[in-house]
Amino acid sequence: MESEEMVEENLRDIYDNISPIDYRYWRKEVGWYLSENGFTRYKLEVEASLANAVHRRGMCGLDILKEIEKACEQVTTAEVYIEEGKTKHDIRALVNCIQKRVSERARSVVHFTATSFDIVETANAARYRDVTMEVLLPSLIKLEEVLIILAKREAETLQIGRTHGQHAVPITFGFAIAEYVSRLGESILFLRRRANELVGKFSGASGAYNASSLFFSDPEIFEREVLSELRIKPGEYSTQIVMPEKLVRFFIEMILIGGILANLSRDMRNLQRTEIGEVGELFEENQVGSSTMPQKRNPINFENVESVWKILVGRVITLLLDQISEHQRDLTNSASARTLGEVIGYLVSITERLTKTMKKLQVDKVNLERNFNLQKGLIVAEPLYLILAALGHPDAHEKVRTLTLQSQKEHKNLEEIAMADPELKVYLSRMDSLQKRIISNPSEYVGIAPKKAMKVASNWNRKINSLKRKMAKAKK
Amino acid sequence: MESEEMVEENLRDIYDNISPIDYRYWRKEVGWYLSENGFTRYKLEVEASLANAVHRRGMCGLDILKEIEKACEQVTTAEVYIEEGKTKHDIRALVNCIQKRVSERARSVVHFTATSFDIVETANAARYRDVTMEVLLPSLIKLEEVLIILAKREAETLQIGRTHGQHAVPITFGFAIAEYVSRLGESILFLRRRANELVGKFSGASGAYNASSLFFSDPEIFEREVLSELRIKPGEYSTQIVMPEKLVRFFIEMILIGGILANLSRDMRNLQRTEIGEVGELFEENQVGSSTMPQKRNPINFENVESVWKILVGRVITLLLDQISEHQRDLTNSASARTLGEVIGYLVSITERLTKTMKKLQVDKVNLERNFNLQKGLIVAEPLYLILAALGHPDAHEKVRTLTLQSQKEHKNLEEIAMADPELKVYLSRMDSLQKRIISNPSEYVGIAPKKAMKVASNWNRKINSLKRKMAKAKK
Amino acid sequence: MESEEMVEENLRDIYDNISPIDYRYWRKEVGWYLSENGFTRYKLEVEASLANAVHRRGMCGLDILKEIEKACEQVTTAEVYIEEGKTKHDIRALVNCIQKRVSERARSVVHFTATSFDIVETANAARYRDVTMEVLLPSLIKLEEVLIILAKREAETLQIGRTHGQHAVPITFGFAIAEYVSRLGESILFLRRRANELVGKFSGASGAYNASSLFFSDPEIFEREVLSELRIKPGEYSTQIVMPEKLVRFFIEMILIGGILANLSRDMRNLQRTEIGEVGELFEENQVGSSTMPQKRNPINFENVESVWKILVGRVITLLLDQISEHQRDLTNSASARTLGEVIGYLVSITERLTKTMKKLQVDKVNLERNFNLQKGLIVAEPLYLILAALGHPDAHEKVRTLTLQSQKEHKNLEEIAMADPELKVYLSRMDSLQKRIISNPSEYVGIAPKKAMKVASNWNRKINSLKRKMAKAKK
Amino acid sequence: MESEEMVEENLRDIYDNISPIDYRYWRKEVGWYLSENGFTRYKLEVEASLANAVHRRGMCGLDILKEIEKACEQVTTAEVYIEEGKTKHDIRALVNCIQKRVSERARSVVHFTATSFDIVETANAARYRDVTMEVLLPSLIKLEEVLIILAKREAETLQIGRTHGQHAVPITFGFAIAEYVSRLGESILFLRRRANELVGKFSGASGAYNASSLFFSDPEIFEREVLSELRIKPGEYSTQIVMPEKLVRFFIEMILIGGILANLSRDMRNLQRTEIGEVGELFEENQVGSSTMPQKRNPINFENVESVWKILVGRVITLLLDQISEHQRDLTNSASARTLGEVIGYLVSITERLTKTMKKLQVDKVNLERNFNLQKGLIVAEPLYLILAALGHPDAHEKVRTLTLQSQKEHKNLEEIAMADPELKVYLSRMDSLQKRIISNPSEYVGIAPKKAMKVASNWNRKINSLKRKMAKAKK
Repeated sequence: MESEEMVEENLRDIYDNISPIDYRYWRKEVGWYLSENGFTRYKLEVEASLANAVHRRGMCGLDILKEIEKACEQVTTAEVYIEEGKTKHDIRALVNCIQKRVSERARSVVHFTATSFDIVETANAARYRDVTMEVLLPSLIKLEEVLIILAKREAETLQIGRTHGQHAVPITFGFAIAEYVSRLGESILFLRRRANELVGKFSGASGAYNASSLFFSDPEIFEREVLSELRIKPGEYSTQIVMPEKLVRFFIEMILIGGILANLSRDMRNLQRTEIGEVGELFEENQVGSSTMPQKRNPINFENVESVWKILVGRVITLLLDQISEHQRDLTNSASARTLGEVIGYLVSITERLTKTMKKLQVDKVNLERNFNLQKGLIVAEPLYLILAALGHPDAHEKVRTLTLQSQKEHKNLEEIAMADPELKVYLSRMDSLQKRIISNPSEYVGIAPKKAMKVASNWNRKINSLKRKMAKAKK
Repeated sequence: MESEEMVEENLRDIYDNISPIDYRYWRKEVGWYLSENGFTRYKLEVEASLANAVHRRGMCGLDILKEIEKACEQVTTAEVYIEEGKTKHDIRALVNCIQKRVSERARSVVHFTATSFDIVETANAARYRDVTMEVLLPSLIKLEEVLIILAKREAETLQIGRTHGQHAVPITFGFAIAEYVSRLGESILFLRRRANELVGKFSGASGAYNASSLFFSDPEIFEREVLSELRIKPGEYSTQIVMPEKLVRFFIEMILIGGILANLSRDMRNLQRTEIGEVGELFEENQVGSSTMPQKRNPINFENVESVWKILVGRVITLLLDQISEHQRDLTNSASARTLGEVIGYLVSITERLTKTMKKLQVDKVNLERNFNLQKGLIVAEPLYLILAALGHPDAHEKVRTLTLQSQKEHKNLEEIAMADPELKVYLSRMDSLQKRIISNPSEYVGIAPKKAMKVASNWNRKINSLKRKMAKAKK
Repeated sequence: MESEEMVEENLRDIYDNISPIDYRYWRKEVGWYLSENGFTRYKLEVEASLANAVHRRGMCGLDILKEIEKACEQVTTAEVYIEEGKTKHDIRALVNCIQKRVSERARSVVHFTATSFDIVETANAARYRDVTMEVLLPSLIKLEEVLIILAKREAETLQIGRTHGQHAVPITFGFAIAEYVSRLGESILFLRRRANELVGKFSGASGAYNASSLFFSDPEIFEREVLSELRIKPGEYSTQIVMPEKLVRFFIEMILIGGILANLSRDMRNLQRTEIGEVGELFEENQVGSSTMPQKRNPINFENVESVWKILVGRVITLLLDQISEHQRDLTNSASARTLGEVIGYLVSITERLTKTMKKLQVDKVNLERNFNLQKGLIVAEPLYLILAALGHPDAHEKVRTLTLQSQKEHKNLEEIAMADPELKVYLSRMDSLQKRIISNPSEYVGIAPKKAMKVASNWNRKINSLKRKMAKAKK
Repeated sequence: MESEEMVEENLRDIYDNISPIDYRYWRKEVGWYLSENGFTRYKLEVEASLANAVHRRGMCGLDILKEIEKACEQVTTAEVYIEEGKTKHDIRALVNCIQKRVSERARSVVHFTATSFDIVETANAARYRDVTMEVLLPSLIKLEEVLIILAKREAETLQIGRTHGQHAVPITFGFAIAEYVSRLGESILFLRRRANELVGKFSGASGAYNASSLFFSDPEIFEREVLSELRIKPGEYSTQIVMPEKLVRFFIEMILIGGILANLSRDMRNLQRTEIGEVGELFEENQVGSSTMPQKRNPINFENVESVWKILVGRVITLLLDQISEHQRDLTNSASARTLGEVIGYLVSITERLTKTMKKLQVDKVNLERNFNLQKGLIVAEPLYLILAALGHPDAHEKVRTLTLQSQKEHKNLEEIAMADPELKVYLSRMDSLQKRIISNPSEYVGIAPKKAMKVASNWNRKINSLKRKMAKAKK
């Protein structure tokens, strides 16, 4: 009952929260790992794991181990915070809370030879790895699969390629999507590797195993034993804390993924412009675009993804500043390290949002074709110049550049103007059939776009399937 | 009863939150303005204010105004979120919730000619300004007052000045603190100015007053009327949103203040090093320094301040990226703008923490003196060189540099060595009495440190008092 | 001759430089202040100014002052660097170079009671202020004037307003430009204020005037005297360095200006998209858009501005990190502070580039009109809903939202559909003549856009003229 | 002669440069790759490589290839810039300069089917990889070797471990250095991997091989042929540009290395504080510490490293912003991408500086011992608590915490107080000989610090040697 009251005291209307991650983008399966309660659970798991290792070394009986394990299942964050109010030290408070629940004999086994950050660092490595494997990667894989399907489905859908926001040479819409299949796919594999590289530690207050050496002649092996239950390995070296680079690389890979999602969203958002209209977010029956302009269909999901990316970019600074810790550690990351979980929470949020949006993406083939034909004549400027050059024209680029100016001035088709040009006659007559076809029909000038779209999509289909099998196996 | 259930549904254990601002650094008086509930309250206030302005123009009766005002007092965030689930548009949801509570006749007055961001921007300007005036500035002023007292109290307390972490020339501890009195004081005044410059808007969907022009021949004056109830002014120009620079400057001044607090904390933390020991955070009777090293007295509060500053520094990036909004606005700040309140929340948290810590700061005069005397002989190198130069020695700096090397090699006092140097005899005999005193007693070589400490402290005492009077008056 | 050789040794092909600021965006009038040679010149000016102050105090004769002034005119950066090779201290090297050129009597006056950063900080404040007044502000003012003219000229040019990249409600192109007139104008005034607030110092090694107190009973007044020749004031407090916030605010205002320029460029770049084509960078006769696509007309100048802004955004981090300096200073800004000049150099570069580009901006009225009419029917959704609501329709927003869906489905004009709707008959018949006109002619639904464009432009025309007068006066 | 004049025109006094990378930290072997001249050289190499591939396909004769190769050896940056003045397009200018030097027949082979960024991206990948392999990695390896030697040499040198800047438990100085051996070693291997992953492209204006498909049925194989001469591979997918993530990861690893160097420098700088004095930068005979305080020995090299790191941290933002490029590319990285070379230049500069400084690092054993003994009694608090707990004391941590307070109050040795405590007698009598030894001699409480220092150092000695063999082989 007491604990129930305590719990009640800690209840708060979610809309009294300040961070949007806690009132708007919060998700239960993310909170399970990344909330303070999740953190406590992992820290208690490390403490239990330590007791287990001590027991396996024959230094305490099974009854004592059971006592501690049971206590570690019962301690709540709320009571730890109350205890911290007295000790002003969060891990000492946690240890006290365990010790209060066990027999006098068991007490000395709790936290045996550990320093706070043996617990904290190991718990963090485990929960960051777990949330990545259980929530983030599955989400990213789903998005990747949606993109693979889209790239295949639209592999042949003609689209004008754009550089500098200007029409360039033809591609297909599936080819454009394949870009993100390739980038996201690669980053998924990188992220998994980075997650698996995360390390814990059990090397004591300065990293020299001072405490554990008092009782074990092989403290580095004992460290492995403590960590093994959480399937975490120690780093090659630690001070009071683990070396920061692995964690930084792990989080930066997430921020890079945020960038890939934002780039895709930027592209879609631009393709959804009123004048372009090649794609659209599906609008639900009752959805309102504007509080005052009832006709609006705004790309709010794509905008949200880009907005969250702007949050993530800033976080890289905090990560890089926390890379520096004085001597065997300082604690100037006490608050900042607590915000790392937000990076994961935000990334999960936009991954799922983008998955939903891309799944229902409306591709408007009428507009794709209309836009493609906007400057029809000019698209062939590149092949025309290349063919002329190959056929021996000494100054083909400059010649064609002049013709395009003429085409724009006279509002005439570039092909027509070229064909009428006396200087070019001798070259153009030598064109082979493919070349002729392309000059008069720019939609053929698509390079290997359809093939490449299929190739990239198939490649990642295979890789993602293999990854899913690996992950399923690892879970067992 | 229904609403009670709804509220219950939105209750969550605070330790299930992900952001430390919501489980560890949250404070009720900050949440009042900066939580989602606070935001809703302000948005409803703007809607009520609009109805009021419409009423004053004689376009609706008092009964209708009362209906709307009452509705605006009743609508809850939770119900708006449920409505948003249908409309997918947050402000349309808010408007619907108000409209549901009023008569058919009143409905058309609600949100009259407004666009969503007329409400959002004005609400934000008002609540950011209010939390600054009501919570943040009073906190900062308290810290400033603690520093003023400390600077005065320790104005004469001799301390060795340090540059590059090396002993330089003498100062006093109060002089060192006066640095922060001056920097923080100036930033307090800047911050207040920046808060008062924040603007709202009521210029419609593109900023051209399209909607309000339909009904008012003086839409810019109508805008002032709507905003006046919240004591907010419109900017010179707006699109769908207010121009971003004022808000960016306002938040960047806060981040600068974070930097000042972090710099002070860095200094204190270094002065608390075991080998230096000139200051110390007061340790409570039951406080634990380390979970394993019972003797530790760690500067955790100073470390926390620096850590939060590392959070704040990253936020400047998000601010600068949100400065860009395409055409009459894009919504790529939909999520990122929601994180701005955290900046204020974090700053309040470290301001109060630092105030408490500095208030109880322990200044160790024994260690101050011990450190001062560590290199006693060498401190006089600077005055010795200057006096020699003034007395005509052609190469005084180089001469004294050589003497200091000799002093270190022979472990002899620099004064002694100088006095024994035959080359210097002729110059040193010409020293006046002040100069002689300083060469043999470096603690006299303190410049105007005590006077300056008092001067700066008194100056800010006066300014802060004047500021407090102004703020008290503004409140009435 | 010796010095000529030395100079030759320091010559380098500019294309051997690594930073684009030195091979691509370098400009002589910027380098004059911000190069290492410029820095040396300012430091020597401070040293001369010090000698002058000593002379005015009667502590050295005019001959000695003249000697030092002459030396300060002759010393070159190259010789200081050679000397620094020996001393490993840049300012001691500078002082040695001066001293070598003067008589034995004058030597002791050189650098009298100064610490290195008395010279460095004062020189920096002066040169940053000067380059702002002489180069950057005049450039910004020119851009502002180009924008003012454009806003006026296009005040009546109808354009569709865009939010979320979607057509919203009508504005005029001059109104859109007025946004930047207003934002840039305000920032110009802020920047000038920030430049005038920059402070120097002459308070010695720890800021307590230890050295100067040995010889002057009023060292703070002596400080003012030294600084006065450079028209620089001391701050209220300094340590070995000036308090950083003023400099940070000064540079951040520049980065904000970079953001304004980038936002304008982003807008123009988007309006230049092939499908939109409302504006265009003027292309010169021989200009090449692409090495392979001769038809391309790329917005390379607008892209360049945004790219430089991405450089500037990163610099804010270095600024904020340098805000922290331990105790009476550490030197962990030795390299980073040297990069600040680049911020100014880059800003000047994009200001001039944008000025040129905007001056010759091609506004395509045909495309403006075509785009305006793209969704003609739908633009009136907002006024229709507002008028219906004002005329008593109980659920106008929802009603109109449904009509727009119908309009899109049936490809019919929204006005037509509304007029045919039996439910709406009763309301629409009550419309006044203005309302009727707007519903059938959306180009009238432009609010006060033309008037506002003129108002903002005129306001800033006046302010900029007044500013120019002030600056001209200050120069005399 | 003409070209000589032109070269002369482009000579500039290095001190007229604005960026410190060009007047202060510039190094010839870095400029060779990263200057504009270096860039031109690499771009010409790609053009020559293209001609080669065309020749191997039998599409041009050897004489034409030779013509083009010769031209590519002759074209200078200066002439390209003059040509760019006309074309306003940098790569078209480069191509024109080549074409001017070759016969009419050869002209059409130059730049055959290439788009500008086929050349630019490939050139960048090659030069960034080369400067890493030839300059940066060798520098980093030298630093790593200096650290390995130091870690071994000082493996047994007792030092007090420090956490929170407070004395914690004993380590050795070699153990502290081993931290950086491990961190830097790992990052060296990562950086090499990232450098080898850099990709080029030859896929044309939109990445779909539109142009090359006109002439080759296997354009992806032709791409590999063009790139193979520079030992560069294409990525899986490209648009007009290569996908950005590989480059971002490559540069971020460098910034992480900057962080490791800065952390080491911060530690050394703090250990060099006057009160600590455990290490010192070697001061040269004539070196000056301060322009006014002749006794100063400032850690300017360590400060410089940290300062440059603050430059590098900001650059991560530019990298992340350039990750986004619209559609098949926009050019909003036109200026920002040009600054990337600076990151490498700065990193080389601080690596060499730190190598020199650490090589001559003075380790002061007298001060190490003095500091170790400062709190002698208290160091044993941790082992005392652990032993008591292991021997069955039910509340050992709290008990020892109280004893330490007593020890500080009474200025008595902690061991003495513990031994005299009646409550502890029963436990302490049960201590084994190792435990007794440690309680009375804290210098024995060093864990496995010496062994770990040796192990880490030896491990990296082996890895670095193997890496050097690999790199030497790759060079052949």
